Amino acid sequence: MFINLEHLGLAVRDLDAATDLYTRLLGVAPYKKEHVTSEAVDTVFFQVGGSKVELLAGTSPDSPITRYLEKKPEGIHHVAFEVEDIRAEMARLRAEGFTLLNEEPKRGADNKLFCFVHPKTAAGVLVELCQSIRD
Amino acid sequence: MFINLEHLGLAVRDLDAATDLYTRLLGVAPYKKEHVTSEAVDTVFFQVGGSKVELLAGTSPDSPITRYLEKKPEGIHHVAFEVEDIRAEMARLRAEGFTLLNEEPKRGADNKLFCFVHPKTAAGVLVELCQSIRD
Repeated sequence: MFINLEHLGLAVRDLDAATDLYTRLLGVAPYKKEHVTSEAVDTVFFQVGGSKVELLAGTSPDSPITRYLEKKPEGIHHVAFEVEDIRAEMARLRAEGFTLLNEEPKRGADNKLFCFVHPKTAAGVLVELCQSIRD
Repeated sequence: MFINLEHLGLAVRDLDAATDLYTRLLGVAPYKKEHVTSEAVDTVFFQVGGSKVELLAGTSPDSPITRYLEKKPEGIHHVAFEVEDIRAEMARLRAEGFTLLNEEPKRGADNKLFCFVHPKTAAGVLVELCQSIRD
């Protein structure tokens, strides 16, 4: 079950400039900055109601965000939905014909498991499923 | 004040096909279909937690969505934040140097007043402010 529009991920070139811009746009300061080594990204999070805005900047030429920005302009990179049971949703979506970008959930920013759905099977939108890790 | 990530607006070419796709992706049926004459769009709404996913299809060659899809692929068209006082937020954002696409709030789908912020001043994101109309 999809519980919540958990966050919107924005690909940006200059994280400090984008952090300043979104602080002024949203009228709220970021609550967290986090480096995700596995994805080679620096992230900055803003909270708006029950959802978050995540700014993403690549920290290496191999980062998915660096590669994305070689082909596309800055803007919305993905939308993440919080799900109750990520493995159950992955199985359900595979059965519905959606293509998933990873076979197993990966561990990402903000203490979450995540999986991406290929945008070609979701009307051009890179959809992330995420589930909080309960240690 | 920004209260909530109210909805995500997706530009689609075939509203029926996209409605079927998002019903299967989100695992929930749409709760509303609405035509917005002023914007020449048909809209379909899904609820996910406290946010909505809005599918938008143009109904005339002059529709902003039809024009958008002449230049860009299907995908995320805009992100809308619910604000407490749209006129106060518009004044605050103008003072912060953001460019607004309308001088006064307009009346849109879902019984809302809305205003757009130019994506060139918001790191490539078309940001909508919206406020429920209390009649």
